[in-house]
Amino acid sequence: MIIRENTINSKRIYEGRMISLRVDTVELPDKKYSTREIVEHPGAAVVVPMTDDGKIIMVKQFRKAVEDSLLEVPAGKLDKGENPAICAHRELQEETGYVSANMQYLFSFYSSPGFSNEIMHLFIATDLTQGEAHPDEDEYIEIVSYELGQLIEMIFQGKIKDSKSIIAIFAASQYLGHNHLGQQ
Amino acid sequence: MIIRENTINSKRIYEGRMISLRVDTVELPDKKYSTREIVEHPGAAVVVPMTDDGKIIMVKQFRKAVEDSLLEVPAGKLDKGENPAICAHRELQEETGYVSANMQYLFSFYSSPGFSNEIMHLFIATDLTQGEAHPDEDEYIEIVSYELGQLIEMIFQGKIKDSKSIIAIFAASQYLGHNHLGQQ
Repeated sequence: MIIRENTINSKRIYEGRMISLRVDTVELPDKKYSTREIVEHPGAAVVVPMTDDGKIIMVKQFRKAVEDSLLEVPAGKLDKGENPAICAHRELQEETGYVSANMQYLFSFYSSPGFSNEIMHLFIATDLTQGEAHPDEDEYIEIVSYELGQLIEMIFQGKIKDSKSIIAIFAASQYLGHNHLGQQ
Repeated sequence: MIIRENTINSKRIYEGRMISLRVDTVELPDKKYSTREIVEHPGAAVVVPMTDDGKIIMVKQFRKAVEDSLLEVPAGKLDKGENPAICAHRELQEETGYVSANMQYLFSFYSSPGFSNEIMHLFIATDLTQGEAHPDEDEYIEIVSYELGQLIEMIFQGKIKDSKSIIAIFAASQYLGHNHLGQQ
């Protein structure tokens, strides 16, 4: 059985810098109505940058929403109409200074589909060359690198709390395990 | 260097059924100002229900924000002040009908810390007994079960697109691998 929710009414609440908010009234299969609060986001590219000696380059930055500094993989939101792979290259270079000669797409996912349309496109970046970082003017970023096995332990220890980064680390581990790229 | 962003002003934009929105003006380390759009969410419990024969119970439901039916692990938002383990038991039973005699906490993560404080607490539920599902009145849920290995393939095929479910599947695979619970 395919369930869809037809939109009966849609109210724009807020148009912002990074997100917008609307509230839809929907018709359910039993003809009752309900409301759906939806945060609109332009989407993002997420990168797992892996050095030749098997380390992952991570960035640490303060996240106001959770009042904490989080260890994350490089990522950034898509410019309007931007190809996710282009965005992945740009964000990798801006946040870490690294340039990748081999950017592989893995898969895409929704960060919080219960209330947001944000989609994230995950890439693994290898064949890295170091350059100079150029973060956005309101981004203060620290760069740190870790072994993949260490990062997986840190997830279970609660030291990596950002969902896209947890997915990126697990996916890189699976991907490298399957492809034996990790064993040189 | 510890970076924090002091709140200079905080404006309430919307108070909703599931989420609220505020916009904070913050002071950056260079004394410039910026704004942070923050979606407030009460948090959620996420459950990987694993049957004695090694299958994961998944739920399929329509998500208005992304206009698609997604395959997800059972999850639900915390009632005010609710213990996440209690919520995990409740949501598992409401959505799937299953009751678990062994609910293990794994770790917690933020779904989208760039713009939301939503935190998710991940549990793995074993020793399951089947009962009757009682979804919320505006939830239409289909229950399906899969082998763990099949679910990991489905992530790389783009067939599982929900971030909390991707984390839950990868984490269960790592956890069972480490603990050899999967090998009976």
